[in-house]
Amino acid sequence: MSHPTGPDHSRRKERSRQAIFAATRALVAEQPYSEVTVGAIAARAGVGKQTIYRRWPSKSAVVFAALLALSENPDGQSLTLPDTGDLAADLKLVMRATAEEFADPSFDRLIRALNTEITHDPALAAEYHTRLAQPLEEAKRARLRSAQEAGQLGAEADLDLALDVLYAPLFQRWLHRSGPLDAAYTDSLVDAMLRAFSP
Amino acid sequence: MSHPTGPDHSRRKERSRQAIFAATRALVAEQPYSEVTVGAIAARAGVGKQTIYRRWPSKSAVVFAALLALSENPDGQSLTLPDTGDLAADLKLVMRATAEEFADPSFDRLIRALNTEITHDPALAAEYHTRLAQPLEEAKRARLRSAQEAGQLGAEADLDLALDVLYAPLFQRWLHRSGPLDAAYTDSLVDAMLRAFSP
Repeated sequence: MSHPTGPDHSRRKERSRQAIFAATRALVAEQPYSEVTVGAIAARAGVGKQTIYRRWPSKSAVVFAALLALSENPDGQSLTLPDTGDLAADLKLVMRATAEEFADPSFDRLIRALNTEITHDPALAAEYHTRLAQPLEEAKRARLRSAQEAGQLGAEADLDLALDVLYAPLFQRWLHRSGPLDAAYTDSLVDAMLRAFSP
Repeated sequence: MSHPTGPDHSRRKERSRQAIFAATRALVAEQPYSEVTVGAIAARAGVGKQTIYRRWPSKSAVVFAALLALSENPDGQSLTLPDTGDLAADLKLVMRATAEEFADPSFDRLIRALNTEITHDPALAAEYHTRLAQPLEEAKRARLRSAQEAGQLGAEADLDLALDVLYAPLFQRWLHRSGPLDAAYTDSLVDAMLRAFSP
């Protein structure tokens, strides 16, 4: 007989968690965000509504957790950016991948829905900032700090500002659909940031 | 007896137009965007619903026109940015004013509502781009071009990219409420752009 906190229980719990996230992402990709309900997510995942509400207080919280799960490392380690010593090459690689992710229709739908929510909900904006934006920013900042220590960025460079200059134009182009999310654009942002913040 | 296209008619038409815009801005500032209706705008402005529908096809179109009217010059001339010859000073002045505008609660509500709409509505996104973003960008680009011709920006500088580097971080900070919309921030953006795109 398996104990409720034993390995079988943990595996079942993880399976239901993954099923809930997959159902959430599928539903958000299929319908307008306002029409997605916790009941529909539960039905699609094959779990009871209470299984969801025991872990997440609201629809926004599950959607948000489903998005966070996408950037989880399988080994549970914290996020790090490549560091080959070539700052320009490392940043271009990462930003090309980010642009591709944004250009993917199912990710686009999920992140667009979340953006609408956080525009109007300061509490969710704060949670987004703490749980998703901040860990990502910390990983990017760590890469810039390593470059700064190697003398590839100015000793006085404001690394937060450098991150804004790198990522905000990409985000805005995606949000406003004002231009292609391609490697030419992300490469040019890396080059501009390096010109602005190199020693 | 005044002719229907005569000066009295024009004045009445302009008065009702201004009343409709004022009503629209007031209602959008007071309630969630989804609850604002063309009927409520008409009632507040003291005109019939048909007066609105004759000129604008939808709620989004009136809201959008009300926003556009905010940046109209009284003399009907096209938008231009200050050009004293000192690029850094001119841009800092303009960007400080933009940050103040974004920080104003009633403007904030209007532009936040519009942003939600354009996130989900590609047609409105295109209209926003053509009618509001593009004329503003053209005015900013003209100022950068004048600086480029004066040798203050590199001959090869990509002026569109320079504009993205200047404005996207400010926009993102406003949208995500991720930091203060103050002069220190806008000044630092101008300085970063100048370092990236100076000869």
